[in-house]
Amino acid sequence: MSLDCTYRLRIPHRHGKLALVTGAIGEHGGLIGDVVTVTLGREASIRDLTVEARDEHHAEELAEALNRLDGIDVVWHQDRALLRHEGGKIEVRARTPVRTVQDTRDFYTPGVARVAQAIADEPSLARRYTWNARSVAICTNGTRVLGLGDIGPRAAAPVMEGKALFYAEFAGLSAVPILIDTPDTDEFVETVVRIAPSFGGIHLEDIAAPECFEIEERLLEALPQPVMHDDVHGTAVVAVAAALVGCRHTERSLDEVVVGQIGLGAAGYGIAALMVRAGARKVLGSDLDEPSQRRAREAGVEIRGLEELMDQADVVVATTGKPGLIEPASVRKGQVILALSNPDPEISSEKALEAGAAFASDGSIVNNMLGYPGIFRGALDAGAEEISVEMKLAAARAIADLTHESDLVPDPLDPTVHERVAEAVRKSAASAAKTS
Amino acid sequence: MSLDCTYRLRIPHRHGKLALVTGAIGEHGGLIGDVVTVTLGREASIRDLTVEARDEHHAEELAEALNRLDGIDVVWHQDRALLRHEGGKIEVRARTPVRTVQDTRDFYTPGVARVAQAIADEPSLARRYTWNARSVAICTNGTRVLGLGDIGPRAAAPVMEGKALFYAEFAGLSAVPILIDTPDTDEFVETVVRIAPSFGGIHLEDIAAPECFEIEERLLEALPQPVMHDDVHGTAVVAVAAALVGCRHTERSLDEVVVGQIGLGAAGYGIAALMVRAGARKVLGSDLDEPSQRRAREAGVEIRGLEELMDQADVVVATTGKPGLIEPASVRKGQVILALSNPDPEISSEKALEAGAAFASDGSIVNNMLGYPGIFRGALDAGAEEISVEMKLAAARAIADLTHESDLVPDPLDPTVHERVAEAVRKSAASAAKTS
Repeated sequence: MSLDCTYRLRIPHRHGKLALVTGAIGEHGGLIGDVVTVTLGREASIRDLTVEARDEHHAEELAEALNRLDGIDVVWHQDRALLRHEGGKIEVRARTPVRTVQDTRDFYTPGVARVAQAIADEPSLARRYTWNARSVAICTNGTRVLGLGDIGPRAAAPVMEGKALFYAEFAGLSAVPILIDTPDTDEFVETVVRIAPSFGGIHLEDIAAPECFEIEERLLEALPQPVMHDDVHGTAVVAVAAALVGCRHTERSLDEVVVGQIGLGAAGYGIAALMVRAGARKVLGSDLDEPSQRRAREAGVEIRGLEELMDQADVVVATTGKPGLIEPASVRKGQVILALSNPDPEISSEKALEAGAAFASDGSIVNNMLGYPGIFRGALDAGAEEISVEMKLAAARAIADLTHESDLVPDPLDPTVHERVAEAVRKSAASAAKTS
Repeated sequence: MSLDCTYRLRIPHRHGKLALVTGAIGEHGGLIGDVVTVTLGREASIRDLTVEARDEHHAEELAEALNRLDGIDVVWHQDRALLRHEGGKIEVRARTPVRTVQDTRDFYTPGVARVAQAIADEPSLARRYTWNARSVAICTNGTRVLGLGDIGPRAAAPVMEGKALFYAEFAGLSAVPILIDTPDTDEFVETVVRIAPSFGGIHLEDIAAPECFEIEERLLEALPQPVMHDDVHGTAVVAVAAALVGCRHTERSLDEVVVGQIGLGAAGYGIAALMVRAGARKVLGSDLDEPSQRRAREAGVEIRGLEELMDQADVVVATTGKPGLIEPASVRKGQVILALSNPDPEISSEKALEAGAAFASDGSIVNNMLGYPGIFRGALDAGAEEISVEMKLAAARAIADLTHESDLVPDPLDPTVHERVAEAVRKSAASAAKTS
């Protein structure tokens, strides 16, 4: 597994020394990221250089190579991700400080009894007087975590905290990882239903297919609040947005093009189904698994072999987890190719473009962190009971509209993006509430 | 139910006008709290006066009385607790901001996969790389909330948020309300066990007796992390601390005195049982409920009638929820009386002192907010698997030691108190780990 390794280096203030360092890293196959000056001493400075290495062995090799350079000391080197995860990524904080006796009388005894009584009398006041209207449970059993597979709920925790971190930073929502220690569908559903009053929204994450479909369906049925499996629908929203942009670039609209979805697992099914609802002229799907084919057919997808799909599709989306599955020779001139498997795509963007694709991107760029924070924020702001297809499409269109000329998706670090997605989703929910 | 009402008043800058206002409030039976100046205008100022009123009707009456005063306008008046609960009391925040591409690479794809893999390989690393070592689930089914009774989990939310708020402010812990929608013991236990990997500690709150005893016992058995029902043990720690201080004031030690516990429900049982373990010479208990008597006897408590208990006990603790239960005539000279029922005690401190008590206090002062934040912080810092009797007693002694001369307990708003409690609990856990 590739890793970002930070090297803390002591570098003498002499001409050419930093060049010596960067040269050595390049020579040994490391990709240089951030360079940060920690201390400026009289004779030397301390700098942290972050380098993407192929694996731990490679990272060690680079450390040794740097240590051999004349005058350079490697003070330490470490996996950045581990360093930055110390103590976790999120915390619960007070919205206002507790300083005086009146504060405790307001927030706790005796004031809180009046608030509890008010909610007992009128349950909808929970939205107003608790964190309910801006909280989300991120529920997982850890049966399909990233590309790592079934590593269980405890090891999935950092991924859930990452999602919660983005909720906090991008949408101002309070999300809490709920690690559910059971692979059983009934037990999972039952557990989420029982704790659901604690949170405004229910975000499902990293649950293996096909169980994830049944779990989501049953929770949608059972609960009065928004429920969304992000691997299915969040990914779909972002993929549809990228497809809209890809079409715009090739001067077509989605209803004129054939979309081909390779892989009909959780993400693939979600993408294909939302492409149908987004009005694509035709949606083709390819997957060897029989139940996956059936599920996709029911959503309006036509099943094809891989070769035929590559031949007919104008927009190709792949979510198979199989690096290199798409042969450059199979790429048609002018195709839009979204090879979304992480960390290694079905075809690299470079190779796809070389082979004639009009646009190409991968999962590191077309990432669902663009979607879910704004989607849930919009749904919760609207007080919506569900996240409808219309709301998802509104989100996809908003993301597409915010994309700069030459890109396939907007910058997820731009706070405006999430605000606009939330706004689009909120408006869609509000207009549905009006017409119903 | 009494309420703190804030009156926003426009008061002309003329001699005696504020006195007119405070005079009128006193005359109509309101108790004046904070007075805050909001705006200083040219001819008048806007001030918020907070007044404790007997009930909503009384609050209205006061508003009308104020409006009738010459030159005074009531701009608005409102229940402060409701005002201050708008939007809830807690939120989830990022521990470090997300600003750059490197941040997303460290906190999410691809870095997070290495952290997840590290925990999959060595589960104890969850303490280091997630919020596990400083997070607490506050679990309730809302079957016995404050003095309000069985109002259900949704209406209990503000109370749980209040507890979480104090965890954040006083102990730097991340606590999350988990509202569990079932009155069934098996379902409750099962649900907490399944979500337990999400949190370092399990805090049980506002669960009716006798179910709460079985629930706690089964969770202690099933889970590898600290579990504590605060209504039982948190209250007990603070009551023992107050008893220690009471004894000190009357120049005795706990092992010389007889303790009488009136009411053997959740809190009463916890107090009586911890008094036994704290080494009181004798612990008497009074309760008409047969199973409660049996449970207390098993913990070393001797059952007596109320009259006999009042006659024999040097320290009397009451947790019956019955205002006025203790007749002034039954108070012995030199007794320490802790009448802890909220909001109305079994005997007011004034009446108890008048009747000859050496020390007296009630539940608004002897409150478990003094205990649980530091207890859980200490247990989590120590990596303890449980909160032992020794840890609880260490907490009680720390609270007693921190109490100023003339008080019965220390100020819960003093951050040192919680730090010291945490430190005492951590040391107790560490020394137990060493000897075992």
